[in-house]
Amino acid sequence: MYSEAIRWTAGGAVELLDQTLLPDRDVYLRVDTIDAMVEAIKRLRVRGAPLIGVAAAMGLAAAAARVAREGSWRGGRVEASTWLANAAHALGNARPTAVNLSWALRRVTEAAQTALATGGDDVAGERMVSSLRQEAQAIWDDDARRCQAMAYAGVSVIPDQARILTICNTGMLATGGIGTAFGVIRLAHQSGKVSEVVACETRPLRQGARLTAWELARTGIPGTVIVDGAVATVMQQGLVDCAIAGADRIAASGDTANKIGTLGVATLANVHGIPFYIAAPLSTIDPDCPAGDGIPIEERAADELGIPPGVRAHNPAFDVTPARLISGIITEAGVLRPPYRESIAGALGIGAGAMQERA
Amino acid sequence: MYSEAIRWTAGGAVELLDQTLLPDRDVYLRVDTIDAMVEAIKRLRVRGAPLIGVAAAMGLAAAAARVAREGSWRGGRVEASTWLANAAHALGNARPTAVNLSWALRRVTEAAQTALATGGDDVAGERMVSSLRQEAQAIWDDDARRCQAMAYAGVSVIPDQARILTICNTGMLATGGIGTAFGVIRLAHQSGKVSEVVACETRPLRQGARLTAWELARTGIPGTVIVDGAVATVMQQGLVDCAIAGADRIAASGDTANKIGTLGVATLANVHGIPFYIAAPLSTIDPDCPAGDGIPIEERAADELGIPPGVRAHNPAFDVTPARLISGIITEAGVLRPPYRESIAGALGIGAGAMQERA
Repeated sequence: MYSEAIRWTAGGAVELLDQTLLPDRDVYLRVDTIDAMVEAIKRLRVRGAPLIGVAAAMGLAAAAARVAREGSWRGGRVEASTWLANAAHALGNARPTAVNLSWALRRVTEAAQTALATGGDDVAGERMVSSLRQEAQAIWDDDARRCQAMAYAGVSVIPDQARILTICNTGMLATGGIGTAFGVIRLAHQSGKVSEVVACETRPLRQGARLTAWELARTGIPGTVIVDGAVATVMQQGLVDCAIAGADRIAASGDTANKIGTLGVATLANVHGIPFYIAAPLSTIDPDCPAGDGIPIEERAADELGIPPGVRAHNPAFDVTPARLISGIITEAGVLRPPYRESIAGALGIGAGAMQERA
Repeated sequence: MYSEAIRWTAGGAVELLDQTLLPDRDVYLRVDTIDAMVEAIKRLRVRGAPLIGVAAAMGLAAAAARVAREGSWRGGRVEASTWLANAAHALGNARPTAVNLSWALRRVTEAAQTALATGGDDVAGERMVSSLRQEAQAIWDDDARRCQAMAYAGVSVIPDQARILTICNTGMLATGGIGTAFGVIRLAHQSGKVSEVVACETRPLRQGARLTAWELARTGIPGTVIVDGAVATVMQQGLVDCAIAGADRIAASGDTANKIGTLGVATLANVHGIPFYIAAPLSTIDPDCPAGDGIPIEERAADELGIPPGVRAHNPAFDVTPARLISGIITEAGVLRPPYRESIAGALGIGAGAMQERA
């Protein structure tokens, strides 16, 4: 099942559902330049760690197609290869925290460079465009499949009649498929296990109150929105059976960066004895990052907070939840359990020692 | 030092600074009917537990003056007394959680009933209006003095170079004086002890980002606004030395109801070893309420959360912080320390045993 947050046009451009306008309006934005995709990612018109990876890969293919159509790269392979490196660099810098972005760009870039290396100068553009498009689609296919696999793995940890708290948006608006944490919730709901979803508003950009609420309404899952400050009281009152969040980057230790507010949810869950899970594809794990303090945290603009002159804003987009607060990491390879250094190394097929050295 | 959030007009009406329009516009709203004051309190045009008490008392006096001027109560004491009881009942039901409201109304009503009892039928209205106005002013004077005394008591617990986290608004926009928690912060700043105030936005109505930010800017105290979901990360990063909040009702046990989000702040402070204080006048303590679970919590309208159709909202305006998470309760009678049942009883001049029985 594919996300409706992104699509190809017949001509090979990309269309993005502009998420800044949801839930009020469904508007698709046509993108076929690198600048336009960088803007869309920076402004969070497209967001969610896995979907950013898919969108960047598709955007690279769409932009390459346009450049090729307009007659560039007559200079052949070297010129095409330089364009590709610059374009991937610009996209990769659009947002710093989610590792899926650089992962997806590396994957499409490698495929395109291979394609360039095996053809003549005269067909460089053509070969590159076709390999980029093919690899971007493969990443999207992959992500949709990983979402399904995560959902199947994750549904096992959801108790019956569960009241599940979640933060931010982790559904089809955040991935190429049914979602990470929200994918688990969707399948658990289809299995009759979900009594209610408690969605945290997720200030400042309200991805919970806008996007998760929109997905809850569309999928018919009973949902209640609370402000982020109400997490403590609903847990204190016994209204939550488990909590699940997505991830933007998972260190080799299991420490996990995710939307600002996640650390609070995890800490409060821990205090109240409520299981707290992360759901994310293996591509979110950064084996080169040993622990949470190595994850770069994006500081976003003060104007997202709407404050008067004369005061400052501190607006980190993410926080880092230490591994010890995480009951399990739900991946397409199953539910990883502590100690995470070992279970993560196993899932990635890397020895734990080698991973440490690599880091 | 008096709050600028409320004032008498020359004619004996009340003017309220409409806090729903801050920080964008400073508009005073003239109030001289019970309905208008009930509306202003319900809509949070005037808010903050101590200020609601002051405003309700002043509103009662202003409304009585208007009714008397328009020639009612020719029927004398019984008629005036009935009007008073109905008016106080309507005001008392405007919001359920803050105990200061019913406390202030009881105080002005008793004064007015005494005044009525000692005069003839012909001067009933006149006597009632004058006693209401006098008692309302006394409550305001009292509150301003209590704020000063709280600030002096509280400044002793603030460490040097303190980075103080606070939630909601507890300054002159919440009281008749310089504030409860914010009054402590102001005096600590004047004493050179404050390095920075971290103000939580306080969704859904953004009293921190709108009102505390406005007060920080006006008083020249260095302040930074964060979203409520960022409390955990700033504490994890060691950016907070202590936290202070106000209160809407304190039970005999010390359990404290305050703005939604306070319980999260207190729990996270506790986890990170950061002292957490409540600052409130003794009038906020409800000795008839034995513990936090006896405090009524106001559920406010879903539209404050701005969510799409098809999902519900759970919008409690307050939460209850258990006494064990509170390092001290700063009052005009000094800083109360655990065990609170004893220290509260002592401050109120009630035996702890008697208080328990009363409850």
